[in-house]
Amino acid sequence: MQQFMSKIYQKRRQNLLKEIKNGIILFLGNQNASKNYKDNHYKFRQDSSFLYFFGIDLPGFAAIIDTDSGEDIIFADDFTTEDMIWIGQQPLVKDFAQRCNVKTTQNFNKLNLYLNKCISQKRKIHTLPAYRYHHSFFYHKTFKGNFSPSVELIKAIVKLREIKSDEEIQEIEKACDIGYEMHFSVMKSAKPGVTEHKLALQMEQIALEKAYMPSFKIILSQNGQILHNHSYNETLQQGRLLLVDAGAETNSHYASDFTRVTPVGGKFSTKQKEIYQIVLDANEKAASLIRPDVSFFDIHIAACRIIISGLKTVGIMKGDTDEALAKGAHTLFMPHGLGHMMGLDVHDMENLGEDHVGYSCSIQRSKQFGTAYLRLGKALKSGFVLTNEPGIYFIPMLIYKWKKDGVHKNFINYDKLETKYIDFGGIRLEDDILVTKDGCRLLGKKRLPITIEEVETVSKS
Amino acid sequence: MQQFMSKIYQKRRQNLLKEIKNGIILFLGNQNASKNYKDNHYKFRQDSSFLYFFGIDLPGFAAIIDTDSGEDIIFADDFTTEDMIWIGQQPLVKDFAQRCNVKTTQNFNKLNLYLNKCISQKRKIHTLPAYRYHHSFFYHKTFKGNFSPSVELIKAIVKLREIKSDEEIQEIEKACDIGYEMHFSVMKSAKPGVTEHKLALQMEQIALEKAYMPSFKIILSQNGQILHNHSYNETLQQGRLLLVDAGAETNSHYASDFTRVTPVGGKFSTKQKEIYQIVLDANEKAASLIRPDVSFFDIHIAACRIIISGLKTVGIMKGDTDEALAKGAHTLFMPHGLGHMMGLDVHDMENLGEDHVGYSCSIQRSKQFGTAYLRLGKALKSGFVLTNEPGIYFIPMLIYKWKKDGVHKNFINYDKLETKYIDFGGIRLEDDILVTKDGCRLLGKKRLPITIEEVETVSKS
Repeated sequence: MQQFMSKIYQKRRQNLLKEIKNGIILFLGNQNASKNYKDNHYKFRQDSSFLYFFGIDLPGFAAIIDTDSGEDIIFADDFTTEDMIWIGQQPLVKDFAQRCNVKTTQNFNKLNLYLNKCISQKRKIHTLPAYRYHHSFFYHKTFKGNFSPSVELIKAIVKLREIKSDEEIQEIEKACDIGYEMHFSVMKSAKPGVTEHKLALQMEQIALEKAYMPSFKIILSQNGQILHNHSYNETLQQGRLLLVDAGAETNSHYASDFTRVTPVGGKFSTKQKEIYQIVLDANEKAASLIRPDVSFFDIHIAACRIIISGLKTVGIMKGDTDEALAKGAHTLFMPHGLGHMMGLDVHDMENLGEDHVGYSCSIQRSKQFGTAYLRLGKALKSGFVLTNEPGIYFIPMLIYKWKKDGVHKNFINYDKLETKYIDFGGIRLEDDILVTKDGCRLLGKKRLPITIEEVETVSKS
Repeated sequence: MQQFMSKIYQKRRQNLLKEIKNGIILFLGNQNASKNYKDNHYKFRQDSSFLYFFGIDLPGFAAIIDTDSGEDIIFADDFTTEDMIWIGQQPLVKDFAQRCNVKTTQNFNKLNLYLNKCISQKRKIHTLPAYRYHHSFFYHKTFKGNFSPSVELIKAIVKLREIKSDEEIQEIEKACDIGYEMHFSVMKSAKPGVTEHKLALQMEQIALEKAYMPSFKIILSQNGQILHNHSYNETLQQGRLLLVDAGAETNSHYASDFTRVTPVGGKFSTKQKEIYQIVLDANEKAASLIRPDVSFFDIHIAACRIIISGLKTVGIMKGDTDEALAKGAHTLFMPHGLGHMMGLDVHDMENLGEDHVGYSCSIQRSKQFGTAYLRLGKALKSGFVLTNEPGIYFIPMLIYKWKKDGVHKNFINYDKLETKYIDFGGIRLEDDILVTKDGCRLLGKKRLPITIEEVETVSKS
């Protein structure tokens, strides 16, 4: 999958060298992931940083950059003639290297020799965190337990990858357009009697047909209050809310990620409309604030303030809004963050460590329940791509626990909650947004239907 | 996924204890396999032996059996309340243990303590081979490199798992019926102008809708001569042959695996019919020989004899059939084995080592090119489930190489091959078969259309 011109990869590596001034940088590409025996594997997914700097989308590759000499080396093995009987004619490693402007290639088993030589010369080896057992095993064997990821390398990569280039934004917009189709198709099909399973497959099919795969396991449930609900066991019932959180990963591996909520049967009840509108107001408020130099933590807080005011209006919350906000009373209803970075990963660079990606020296992660899940808090820059996804959920387990423990009882009307909202479900409304020089813009050709009228129009059709 | 009654798992463990008389048996269940960061994972696939003995279909489990005390222990962690906000209410580890009649459960981190105690007591610890990096890493850390799989345990498990019970055969037949639907649907849709990609997705969709997933990555190609061709890049052309090798894995994880070849546009040419009929004759000959106590190696050879005779008839091969067979001249056209075991894995127990599964002391793997790929050679028993999949392929790369090197030139008419068959493609015809007390039977409600007339009738419709 050669998405960009070979010079782009070289330029990115040159930019990286401006940040890392000493030692060796090691990039481990991914291997095939086996299911029930070695040769029965899942659809291959390359490591995103390997893709970013080398663009080679195949298993069995690794690379190093020597920051002193500036030399890059790709380590991989050519297929044998016997392999090619089974899998057909294949390009050579040097062909792949050429496509990303790397001049030197070596067999994969030379990587260990190379690294051992660096170790014996006491050269610094910069590595990234392990998120697959393949990496853990490799590092464990190579560095004999004497290993920690390079924070310097992590920070350098975040600095490069967090600013999306025009080519990358084009790819993300492709992912958004396919995500649009996935969601639109379900919004139209959310009729009583249809199964969640059928609708989830319908979305997956679009992702597999027009993109590489869904960007993460599709969340599609009438129990939207379960935040990462991955079962599709229910049949749609008139009057319930269907929450769908899903996106596409393009063939170049850029992601989209949207959430919409559709009333099964095509009509929101008054109670549903009231809660829905609060979430939509929070989404719009957040979008109105997104611009360079504003911290996303402050935008998260602004969205939560809208949620508290709204819930006060319908009589679920009470008391002073700012005090409720400071104490985190709203986290009963929104126990997650407003959004996250998005790019080659749907939670972009999550494998590099969320705090390195989403926080900075000046803005550190909150320790408050719920707010601690905010993945992105730091000041925004032009070129960031992120999600904006406020929500309100009625989580029976949490409501009963907090009520029993008397948590924030001055801010929450537990009686009303229990009698009127306990089986409400959950609402989340998520868009994908590019931070621009002087504000932001939604990504994708068209915004997915989001107002009450728009959603009802599509789902009734 | 609780498929069978809890007593079945206990009985299987008791049967295992009859085979292994000393030490500790360790079963590592699988973990989630990550894609591009830890929490973005593939659809979970449990280890098949773990499923066979414990039936627990979730990540994060391990188990031991103490062969001295007969005690089983399951190691796993309960979800926390905070987890359940994200994923909903979940059963406890002890509930899962109860479902497979295991009385003792411990936290996962106790497994290392337990194993270290066994190591210090110098007790034998029986483990299975690693086929995921997760296993390699676990074994490497726990046994500090001082590790090899237990051949005694492997042989004991093969002895149990190779004989399928009635319950298992029912599950395999479900997989076969879904496999039937997948293939039938493609056979009907193989029209000029349709893309391979669309048809592969159409099959995958049926597997995801009616089963758990395809039992392996679907092979669907007009280039059937590439044995494990996994690209779907072509558009179907009138007159070409579409080879499809695919099956379903049910929710209980039993597999099916069929291959059929359809003429694009619905009509075989005379040349295609000739080759097709030879492969079908080989398939039928093999099926007629499958019964207990016959070695599958001999059946493979009998099928190859049919292929040689047939290719002589059409003028592609020549010379003495038995001599050509002994020398392996036919492996130019069928460079793979006649079949393999099938069950909880589509290549059943391949993770335990092919030679342990498919061969015995008396029948060992051939070293001849092509024949060496035969996965199953040993004498058959009632209760074995296996595939019967002869094929004839015209592999340009191999033909040119053999011709250049003068390989088997007394048995092969290279000129005719090159001028008339070089772009033929490949044909393979595969059924799933149960060895019965006095012979065998095809699995699944109906046999997939296989005669020339049957296939033409479906593909024209």
